[in-house]
Amino acid sequence: MIYTITLNPAIDQLLFVKEDVQKRKTNRIVKTSWDCGGKGLHVSGVLSQFGVPNEALGFIGSQNKEQLYRILAEKRISHDFLMEDGVATRTSFVIISETSSGSIMMPEAGFHVSMANKQAMLAQIREKVTPNDMVVIAGSPPPGFTLADFEVLLKTLQHTGCFVGCDVSGDFLQLAAKRGVDFIKPNEDEIKALLADETADLEVAIRRLAKQIRYLVVSLGKDGSYCAHDGKLYRITAPQVAEKSDTGAGDCFVGAFIAGLAKQLPLSEVLKRATGCSASKVMHADSSTFSLVEAEILQEQVEIKEMSIDVI
Amino acid sequence: MIYTITLNPAIDQLLFVKEDVQKRKTNRIVKTSWDCGGKGLHVSGVLSQFGVPNEALGFIGSQNKEQLYRILAEKRISHDFLMEDGVATRTSFVIISETSSGSIMMPEAGFHVSMANKQAMLAQIREKVTPNDMVVIAGSPPPGFTLADFEVLLKTLQHTGCFVGCDVSGDFLQLAAKRGVDFIKPNEDEIKALLADETADLEVAIRRLAKQIRYLVVSLGKDGSYCAHDGKLYRITAPQVAEKSDTGAGDCFVGAFIAGLAKQLPLSEVLKRATGCSASKVMHADSSTFSLVEAEILQEQVEIKEMSIDVI
Repeated sequence: MIYTITLNPAIDQLLFVKEDVQKRKTNRIVKTSWDCGGKGLHVSGVLSQFGVPNEALGFIGSQNKEQLYRILAEKRISHDFLMEDGVATRTSFVIISETSSGSIMMPEAGFHVSMANKQAMLAQIREKVTPNDMVVIAGSPPPGFTLADFEVLLKTLQHTGCFVGCDVSGDFLQLAAKRGVDFIKPNEDEIKALLADETADLEVAIRRLAKQIRYLVVSLGKDGSYCAHDGKLYRITAPQVAEKSDTGAGDCFVGAFIAGLAKQLPLSEVLKRATGCSASKVMHADSSTFSLVEAEILQEQVEIKEMSIDVI
Repeated sequence: MIYTITLNPAIDQLLFVKEDVQKRKTNRIVKTSWDCGGKGLHVSGVLSQFGVPNEALGFIGSQNKEQLYRILAEKRISHDFLMEDGVATRTSFVIISETSSGSIMMPEAGFHVSMANKQAMLAQIREKVTPNDMVVIAGSPPPGFTLADFEVLLKTLQHTGCFVGCDVSGDFLQLAAKRGVDFIKPNEDEIKALLADETADLEVAIRRLAKQIRYLVVSLGKDGSYCAHDGKLYRITAPQVAEKSDTGAGDCFVGAFIAGLAKQLPLSEVLKRATGCSASKVMHADSSTFSLVEAEILQEQVEIKEMSIDVI
């Protein structure tokens, strides 16, 4: 089974306007819609779209649980959340202009998770997760979820022997790298920060970090990505598409990447699919829509150059 | 009694952010709050703050009525709304940056009012309104509320013999002016459009329109206003204040103006109070907050020049 962990889920409220919003004018909303939010839930959505069985874990608030459940049911996302009483899952407002690219993301902070629920998650992992499972933690933790909490979570996961992927940032990324999880996806700035060497050559940096991470992906935005695995370094060039919004493109990549690994496809195939999905997402205005058909066409345009990792 | 009519009320959802929102970054929401929205409800709020008895009329949706009622109770606004089943009162999102001035208003369109409810409003007016009452229609009508509907509404109101004020725009303002209601508040562009003469001298335009409107106020934003009444033209200069947001300043003016008339204060006093309230509102970031104490201080700085209306 694949589990995604969203420590700070959201309900995305999408506000569509005609043009870029401005002060001192009436920016009429032409349409609103809702989506689940938080990177882990988006990853679950991609897995479900690929028909890969998965279950979303994480902390949600009791007050608006029906609304979140309704959205998840529409997206065929199975879940087993821990519920915090008397609080609401945060809303993340996304303003999308129909006539320009890029969206404005306005997330609420989210609630503090109780000690009892932090403990309950560890118990849940010990009970559910087996060495054959894959677990992906994606998205930033909520306020009050400390680095120490995150370390206990990683230890508990790694103790089960499962595959652990982490799409997180800042100190949490640093910790995930230090603990040698199976998959991380830093960007160029992040990998240099991880090595505490801002001037490092990118390929050199990847080769150094690849020693401790089984699947290391470095995302370069529209320029594609690098992936280091099993003594090989891959340079992936993404197809050029008309950008509507790159928000959520990373989640599409992660979802498709994990789906490909779960299906035991060859790595070059996995990378092509992930890059195609991510490029398809960029063509859509919201944070999670991509098309499997578009992705299949786009992945034909993905170029992969393979190098030995030990060159330097 | 004073009645306000809000044809398209809203629940204002205020989203406070640290800095001006930007695409492609995380604009963290630091606080959210709710207010009633729609100009008529803001006018009611001002009347209530002045201790002037009033009742808010209009069309609201059943789905979120409890939330709206809760907000109105907090603001001590009495109401007798007509309810549309199976729809929600629209939300108007207001993005307020803590470190800059001006807000981003993003209103939803609102629901279509049924014929039955349009009729019910006319019946309600015939039953409630007496010649001694004042009625203020403020804010744009909802989708599907036609100019013909508005004309029937005005006729029904005028037939009662009550004072009729209209803070509306576009064709609705044109109609209100044509029907010679007791109070309108166009801005400089609007009064020229009303006279179909873009090149008219402003004072000439006011003198012409004053023949058919008992209390004609022309707002000039931070430059103050004109008021024409009973053969006199007043030029009101507003105090200069540090602007946080001018949204809702007009509603403060209207509320304080109507409150003053209801209390039968001398017109120069009414204009000073209305201008003071409006200036106080400008110093606050949201759409309706002003302070009676601030307004009292500011009204001492308001200057009024009185001229005969028949000079030209």
